[in-house]
Amino acid sequence: MLVVMEAGARPEEIEAVVRHIERLGLKAHPIPGAHRTAIGITGHQGKQDPFVIENFPGVKEVIPVTHAYKLVSREAKPDNTVVSVGGVDVGSNGIVVVGGPCAVESLEQTRSIAEGIKRAGGQLFRGGAYKPRTSPYSFQGLGERGLEILARVREEFDLPVVTEAIDEESLKLVAQYADCIQIGARNMQNFSLLRSAGKAKKPVLLKRGMSATLEELLLSAEYIMSEGNYNVILCERGVRTFADHTRNTLDLSVVPAVKRISHLPILVDPSHGTGKRNKVAPMSRASIAVGADGVLIEVHHKPEEALSDGPQAILPEAFAQIVRECDAIAQVVGRTLQPALSLS
Amino acid sequence: MLVVMEAGARPEEIEAVVRHIERLGLKAHPIPGAHRTAIGITGHQGKQDPFVIENFPGVKEVIPVTHAYKLVSREAKPDNTVVSVGGVDVGSNGIVVVGGPCAVESLEQTRSIAEGIKRAGGQLFRGGAYKPRTSPYSFQGLGERGLEILARVREEFDLPVVTEAIDEESLKLVAQYADCIQIGARNMQNFSLLRSAGKAKKPVLLKRGMSATLEELLLSAEYIMSEGNYNVILCERGVRTFADHTRNTLDLSVVPAVKRISHLPILVDPSHGTGKRNKVAPMSRASIAVGADGVLIEVHHKPEEALSDGPQAILPEAFAQIVRECDAIAQVVGRTLQPALSLS
Amino acid sequence: MLVVMEAGARPEEIEAVVRHIERLGLKAHPIPGAHRTAIGITGHQGKQDPFVIENFPGVKEVIPVTHAYKLVSREAKPDNTVVSVGGVDVGSNGIVVVGGPCAVESLEQTRSIAEGIKRAGGQLFRGGAYKPRTSPYSFQGLGERGLEILARVREEFDLPVVTEAIDEESLKLVAQYADCIQIGARNMQNFSLLRSAGKAKKPVLLKRGMSATLEELLLSAEYIMSEGNYNVILCERGVRTFADHTRNTLDLSVVPAVKRISHLPILVDPSHGTGKRNKVAPMSRASIAVGADGVLIEVHHKPEEALSDGPQAILPEAFAQIVRECDAIAQVVGRTLQPALSLS
Amino acid sequence: MLVVMEAGARPEEIEAVVRHIERLGLKAHPIPGAHRTAIGITGHQGKQDPFVIENFPGVKEVIPVTHAYKLVSREAKPDNTVVSVGGVDVGSNGIVVVGGPCAVESLEQTRSIAEGIKRAGGQLFRGGAYKPRTSPYSFQGLGERGLEILARVREEFDLPVVTEAIDEESLKLVAQYADCIQIGARNMQNFSLLRSAGKAKKPVLLKRGMSATLEELLLSAEYIMSEGNYNVILCERGVRTFADHTRNTLDLSVVPAVKRISHLPILVDPSHGTGKRNKVAPMSRASIAVGADGVLIEVHHKPEEALSDGPQAILPEAFAQIVRECDAIAQVVGRTLQPALSLS
Repeated sequence: MLVVMEAGARPEEIEAVVRHIERLGLKAHPIPGAHRTAIGITGHQGKQDPFVIENFPGVKEVIPVTHAYKLVSREAKPDNTVVSVGGVDVGSNGIVVVGGPCAVESLEQTRSIAEGIKRAGGQLFRGGAYKPRTSPYSFQGLGERGLEILARVREEFDLPVVTEAIDEESLKLVAQYADCIQIGARNMQNFSLLRSAGKAKKPVLLKRGMSATLEELLLSAEYIMSEGNYNVILCERGVRTFADHTRNTLDLSVVPAVKRISHLPILVDPSHGTGKRNKVAPMSRASIAVGADGVLIEVHHKPEEALSDGPQAILPEAFAQIVRECDAIAQVVGRTLQPALSLS
Repeated sequence: MLVVMEAGARPEEIEAVVRHIERLGLKAHPIPGAHRTAIGITGHQGKQDPFVIENFPGVKEVIPVTHAYKLVSREAKPDNTVVSVGGVDVGSNGIVVVGGPCAVESLEQTRSIAEGIKRAGGQLFRGGAYKPRTSPYSFQGLGERGLEILARVREEFDLPVVTEAIDEESLKLVAQYADCIQIGARNMQNFSLLRSAGKAKKPVLLKRGMSATLEELLLSAEYIMSEGNYNVILCERGVRTFADHTRNTLDLSVVPAVKRISHLPILVDPSHGTGKRNKVAPMSRASIAVGADGVLIEVHHKPEEALSDGPQAILPEAFAQIVRECDAIAQVVGRTLQPALSLS
Repeated sequence: MLVVMEAGARPEEIEAVVRHIERLGLKAHPIPGAHRTAIGITGHQGKQDPFVIENFPGVKEVIPVTHAYKLVSREAKPDNTVVSVGGVDVGSNGIVVVGGPCAVESLEQTRSIAEGIKRAGGQLFRGGAYKPRTSPYSFQGLGERGLEILARVREEFDLPVVTEAIDEESLKLVAQYADCIQIGARNMQNFSLLRSAGKAKKPVLLKRGMSATLEELLLSAEYIMSEGNYNVILCERGVRTFADHTRNTLDLSVVPAVKRISHLPILVDPSHGTGKRNKVAPMSRASIAVGADGVLIEVHHKPEEALSDGPQAILPEAFAQIVRECDAIAQVVGRTLQPALSLS
Repeated sequence: MLVVMEAGARPEEIEAVVRHIERLGLKAHPIPGAHRTAIGITGHQGKQDPFVIENFPGVKEVIPVTHAYKLVSREAKPDNTVVSVGGVDVGSNGIVVVGGPCAVESLEQTRSIAEGIKRAGGQLFRGGAYKPRTSPYSFQGLGERGLEILARVREEFDLPVVTEAIDEESLKLVAQYADCIQIGARNMQNFSLLRSAGKAKKPVLLKRGMSATLEELLLSAEYIMSEGNYNVILCERGVRTFADHTRNTLDLSVVPAVKRISHLPILVDPSHGTGKRNKVAPMSRASIAVGADGVLIEVHHKPEEALSDGPQAILPEAFAQIVRECDAIAQVVGRTLQPALSLS
């Protein structure tokens, strides 16, 4: 933390800041400059927020220097974390391609799509039983019945399942039926839900919020890890900007940024990230090229009849093409396609 | 809804879209133009999402025309809604000035601040017992003990209390102890929590999410209302942009936009909206000038010792000055300062 | 400037950074902390960019502490600058209300509107002769003929004129015909144009770019001032965000931020800032309430026939109402309405 | 264009809108719906702006349906445009890797870097002689001397040169010395400069502005083309958002969006787009994977001594590695590396 004093700050004002820092049990390092004095702060920050120093007379700015996250940091754990989702490794050298419908609509629909995913070489299945919808009047998912369908499909096709939990109640059921608990973008800072996910026994896929900074994403992961669940997978799914040619702006640069700071795996969701079917394949390729550990793709066998998010779903054949292209690009960056579980 | 066809769309492609629209039970109105055909859609939209038409061959774009909200709309209820918070009207001709600390820290702190709020003419008290904090290691609030303190202070000073609920459990307690349940910006799209708030018997103050459009804010209010709780107060608290001179960008133009579309009252929170103590007074004045039904202000008797959000809290004396200025500006726009409850 | 080293930076890496800082003629102040070392830098920065230190091994981050602007700063000139625009003071205790059409279309149109502005108490006239339009096929303004019309109208109504220059050529003409040269948002970082405006003999109204930070706005003003023209008026006209209920998001908090850092006057343009006729009056009131030195408003006597930006233009009668409301709010904040020039 | 009437619009209000549309020489198509009437508009839009209809009583919204660009559109020219930059094709099946320093600093520096670019297989050279800098006190480039250096280096290494013009004067010189005129992000809506570039005899590289929509980028290209210069190359270089882990947010999804709508080639600049040296290689790979026609990369042989933008420049060896990776990824997407000119 660095305190920058005003150009005209008086010596007693500087003195008052130094004394306050010391009262907090920290160490103050005044640096007199040509125009103004800055004061470096070192030591372990406790319960009190040193930002309140911004209120002292003569203080121009307080600049944070250290970060609040610990467990997510590569400084804490230099090696990459590999998370096993029902037997499929995420974050290892092999990349994963996750596919499935936005929403589970019926057993037939789910089976049809799962068959396509499996045949195409997808290793994990996604599909929502609980859908957080902007409008209360939109289709909200089949709930537990949807989870049952997902569980049946997993058994039939040996495709571990990722599905979203939206509250305490659904979290318990998802943890029971599925292989990985998804926390959606809208709940990235639902801290109670994060804590509960931290107590669950299944891995967690944490999506970046629509206006979340990297620091906030990592701190949300820290919430989960601080409760004892270290199996966290991050996911970029687009942020909200003024740009209107896609539904969100997929921020691929966050992938190398995460890799630099954290040991956690990160996937990219180009379906929600663009909201446009014709952008899914190119952005999937780009995701693997930039270093993501995999992609999450919405697939529907009849997109024009999908109950939600039809415009971004692609056909199983297009998904198969994406798996092939991701495989080829993985090899350029020294990686491979993670093998799918073999049908037992 | 309007479907715009590509310039080169073939007649059979147009025909296929028309047939699909009719299959959905809607009416299609083809409009042949100089370059391309557009197809208007009318009728009551059912469960299926007409956006899937974007996937049909020859379709360039699907443009939504109607909105999904109903109950929040001024078309549904032309007159302004007035919400009574513990006897204080919000949304009437009288504006309200809500004050209090970011977090309840102790009985003495809360009493000291409440005394200042009451003396200054503030009509409602705010203070967090449950604090949604970005880092798991920051102070998270006193929980139920905080609610008890708030309830004691309400009795002593006749100041109805607004406080945040962050999950099912805290919601139940807040609904029991407080006069108004706050749903914070990070939970604006926590739809389960919105539904629960819709079943509660107390008014709800719903803050706009950091990247929420007006439509999304209104649809979140619609979630609450669709469960039967019509006492919803909206609150603008700043959105996230590239601008870095304030912590968030307070979007005051949303106030007249809400007033035009909806009958619900709207407050402004210039403390979170700017994150800077020296911006609170000018932005409070601007909020009343633009037509808000009141402001929500963080006040602390010792801001430099506050356990959270110190840099934006102001002293009780500064709050008193804001009340006077808001009163004067209210009169310019033909309103008044809502009277505070008299100490019984 | 503060250099933050990695947690594991080796002593020789720290040493290399210190040596490089000293080689630049600056002073290095290492601050060893619990986890990592930070190095404060003081002294006058020369031609070389200390940011390159970010490339040294062991360096985590370089954090700027001082700002590049000098002449615009209140540290350089504590008192408010008052700019005389054809005899009307901008930045004094009296606020100004500037009105006029988006584009000068004809002598009759301009005279009709100017008459309304004058009658309403507006002190300055605005109107574009050179229009920077997004599309090459839109109406681009009358050019010099438009300037002649503006000059005639000024004489007739004693209304000093503000009008936009878009390049060297138009700048020369604008400086000759008008009382104040407007640099539009799209040209805020057209540094050649800024330099030319800095050499002109007329005041400059500099609009904030659509994605400009406060620092960038001030540095663009610094370009003008560094050429010797100290008569610069800043103008907030909305920034670009995801919000879609207005055309831009008017960032009123920049007004107190400018007032704190700089001595220059600042106006607000709620017409472009919202792009919606029904938001102009409330945002004008809010602008004066927040501390702006005036507002800039698009007025048209027949908005439905305007050749550009019709949806945001208001009628002369609505303008008169805004003048009255701004006057009343000015008084609440201890200011007045600046008197208009009397018709000679 | 579609006019949406209010739910309660009266028949005479609808009639007035229809009459106005017809008065503009357009055709009105009223579509009565369950709740409200919409009116489709067809025909060739003239000088008057149909948006003024938004001001008519009873009108809720006017929704644009067609776009203002013509020449840039794939509807106007279905085949990809290939632009020859000094003999190197941009936009053909072969991708290009452009390298060079942010600023030309000296002949030695430029020669050293050019040698590295050539050896690595880069086909084009970039380097600024005119630098648009945020602060008037930063290094602004060597001007014409810089252009002379670039021309010498081109001859020596057979590397055609792309360099930025910032005003009329520099544009003339750039068009004379260089092979391709760059228009920078800050000048994307400097329409006078665009028109001049449209009259120049050299190809133009047009960078997307920091807050430009795709539509605005295309309309700026349209300015150039409408003056007769059809050799326009677009360039994505990052947009401004709240995200702070990179200097800008590189919006790769704009590449397939451009490819869908326009026949013009598009490059990506990951150096400015991220502002971080360690993000340049991954984002270069991603750019080719997503379908860009090439990348533009800042290279410096001594980044820690660069006079501008040091933190994002990479070493020639790192550039060579990027060329190899882009080559490999090009092959995955069915393309190749465009051959460099052979040294004559």
